[in-house]
Amino acid sequence: MKNILVIGAGRSSTALINYVLEKAKEYGWFVTVADADPQLAQQKVNGHSNGRGTWLDVMKVNDRRELIERNDIVVSLLPAHLHLEVAQDCIKLKKHLITASYVSKEMYRLGDAARDRELIFMGEMGLDPGIDHMSAMQKIDEIKEKGGKLHAFRSYTGGLIAPESDTNPWHYKFTWNPRNVVLAGQGTAQYLEENKYKYIPYNRLFAQYRLVDIPTMGEYEVYANRDSLLYREVYGLNDIPNILRGTIRHRGFCDAWNAFIKLGLTDGSYPILESENLTYHSFMEAYLKPGSGSVRDRTAVFLGEDLDSDVMHKLDWLGLFSKKKINIENATPALILEHLLLDKWKLEEDDKDMIIMQHEFEYDLDGERRLLTSTLVLKGNDSTDTAMARLVGIPLGIFVKLVMQGKITATGVNIPVMKEVYDPVIEELKEYGVVFEERETVLA
Amino acid sequence: MKNILVIGAGRSSTALINYVLEKAKEYGWFVTVADADPQLAQQKVNGHSNGRGTWLDVMKVNDRRELIERNDIVVSLLPAHLHLEVAQDCIKLKKHLITASYVSKEMYRLGDAARDRELIFMGEMGLDPGIDHMSAMQKIDEIKEKGGKLHAFRSYTGGLIAPESDTNPWHYKFTWNPRNVVLAGQGTAQYLEENKYKYIPYNRLFAQYRLVDIPTMGEYEVYANRDSLLYREVYGLNDIPNILRGTIRHRGFCDAWNAFIKLGLTDGSYPILESENLTYHSFMEAYLKPGSGSVRDRTAVFLGEDLDSDVMHKLDWLGLFSKKKINIENATPALILEHLLLDKWKLEEDDKDMIIMQHEFEYDLDGERRLLTSTLVLKGNDSTDTAMARLVGIPLGIFVKLVMQGKITATGVNIPVMKEVYDPVIEELKEYGVVFEERETVLA
Repeated sequence: MKNILVIGAGRSSTALINYVLEKAKEYGWFVTVADADPQLAQQKVNGHSNGRGTWLDVMKVNDRRELIERNDIVVSLLPAHLHLEVAQDCIKLKKHLITASYVSKEMYRLGDAARDRELIFMGEMGLDPGIDHMSAMQKIDEIKEKGGKLHAFRSYTGGLIAPESDTNPWHYKFTWNPRNVVLAGQGTAQYLEENKYKYIPYNRLFAQYRLVDIPTMGEYEVYANRDSLLYREVYGLNDIPNILRGTIRHRGFCDAWNAFIKLGLTDGSYPILESENLTYHSFMEAYLKPGSGSVRDRTAVFLGEDLDSDVMHKLDWLGLFSKKKINIENATPALILEHLLLDKWKLEEDDKDMIIMQHEFEYDLDGERRLLTSTLVLKGNDSTDTAMARLVGIPLGIFVKLVMQGKITATGVNIPVMKEVYDPVIEELKEYGVVFEERETVLA
Repeated sequence: MKNILVIGAGRSSTALINYVLEKAKEYGWFVTVADADPQLAQQKVNGHSNGRGTWLDVMKVNDRRELIERNDIVVSLLPAHLHLEVAQDCIKLKKHLITASYVSKEMYRLGDAARDRELIFMGEMGLDPGIDHMSAMQKIDEIKEKGGKLHAFRSYTGGLIAPESDTNPWHYKFTWNPRNVVLAGQGTAQYLEENKYKYIPYNRLFAQYRLVDIPTMGEYEVYANRDSLLYREVYGLNDIPNILRGTIRHRGFCDAWNAFIKLGLTDGSYPILESENLTYHSFMEAYLKPGSGSVRDRTAVFLGEDLDSDVMHKLDWLGLFSKKKINIENATPALILEHLLLDKWKLEEDDKDMIIMQHEFEYDLDGERRLLTSTLVLKGNDSTDTAMARLVGIPLGIFVKLVMQGKITATGVNIPVMKEVYDPVIEELKEYGVVFEERETVLA
């Protein structure tokens, strides 16, 4: 095995491509980077003698299969809905497949076919999902091994802006998919608390945040993810009484975001009529009851905010009361908001992003209840070499190496919850600054 | 033309079948009532010499076509998603088609084919939609004809319980599809106010109700429908500055229903885990933050209600704090609520329902702004002969007669907004007690 195919040369590919090219000489690999934009692919390979960039339209079945055929392992960085076709090719042509995306039900159905052919299809091999699985499973297995019984597992992740680049009143900038940020939390969050299922509907998700202390960083807000129960079984936590996954935000973020939800501005399901003619001011007015007073005053009254509250200042800073034209046709409110935020929350060239991930494990051992907290804080270098991009790409690269070295015995469709994966990946990630700091206290 | 086919013999068919059988002798019609339950169909025909009840599985294409072939006009009372297949048969076999359901986009696409064959496909020919279109269009055309310029059109309808049968603190019982009541308003309501589009998201739709005075009845609450702008064009109201459609409820209903929305109980999109083991008490608790105090106390605090408020009494009366088991597997919160309400809001045998429909037309004429209010209040006889069922069925019947008499010149896919339809239907409906009372005042 010596040929690696990376499909997709977009922003999230850099750290992965750099990693495999760096190792290529040593291990005798050849790396093909394929993209609809061949120049972008070539630029990422950057003349490296063990690699080449090439053109691929993934919808062209024959071209795609021909390229896959000539490689031993495929890393797909395509949009999630395109993985399945690549996966079916990989079954047919007997190639391993690795992605950083959530594994769909359709993908899991390929499990038997992949196992029969002794292939590994590894999904959720990035940061979140990815490093969260691996770092949590390592601790869960350690606790179980020493005889501990887990009482609670809570896991929080945030893609944030580093304090030194925090230059706006929201204390937030986009470091990943803006659309996902705007639509985050829609539906109902489910989690488990003292053996009872708990539900938080979207209309109060951002009002019901909890405060979490991050060692060396201070207090952050966390709102619950929709999917806290999703990994209960695969983590081997079927009997645990408490399980919660959440997203980390800076203090003050959730209350302000909740203003958008109350107003109705995060809805992506219907277009605003004649949106191209609206100003932000008239857009806001469309969601207010008629009344006297300025749109800003009526917004404050509606939200129950003082005129000079933090929330109102955050709305001011976005220009939501300005008479600037929106200039997007047929836009949903969510899209209008996304476009505004894309401009306001843009990462400047020298800005550093920051990933925070924290796991909390409560467990009983030797008659004591203990709390183990495991925390990762990692900053990027600038707006290109972000911590986010690095932590998505490097685990993919390390896993490619493990497969190429024949160190992976697992077959079928998987996510990285097994020791043979998490141990070497977590270990090597330390070289890249991915170090979880641990604290343990006795609760009772 | 002499043969009429009615497909579907369920609850909503009685008034229609009685109407066409009553007229059958006089006009020489023969009425075939077809249902998956042939006994139900025969029971509805009740031995009338001009009718018969017969078995039909609508999914059996050949049986369905054979039956349609032998008739001149088809009234489909099937669930809305099944109309389209019947409609395609009617195109093929050259038969007219009448339904009380909303006309889908797919149905509108059959317009040319129906017109080419000189067929009338009439949808929305019941109460709401149906009588609302006809009674509003008659007034709109009258106002335009005398030179009036419409400034506002507001239209409200409610399927309610008559005061003499109003025996519960919600002042509401189910007189039509319970599921639609539970899911009502999800999405975002859109309407037009002083030439500006206005939006009310679901999370505050029931908080932002308006009070409307119904002559002889008093004040009611109205929440906005999603679709206020839907008929602007077909009503010929493209330039009107104000348009709003809404649903009428008894005073106190909206605040109490809003408690369900705040809690998250009207969501039909995900199942409650292990719902079969829950009690109503634990169901409520699953939506509350942990804390001290009883579930009822914490619910009151969460809702911002006094412990003995009207809203809390309404929740008490439903038994939401009782330890009774829910006993439904894999149920969504909306389904749990629907099942509870089905029991609590059941129409008793002698209960009378009540339809209220009110249109408000503001228009300028001779330098004056006038307000014309047109109001229908109609009560049913009992839980079988409801006003609701009558007002859905009789317009269908009258329209069948008009088509059979060759009095309809319109062809293609339509809703009843044309004079040749609304004039005779509204006129004949008076014989059935459907009388709109009008009041006109000068506003300025």
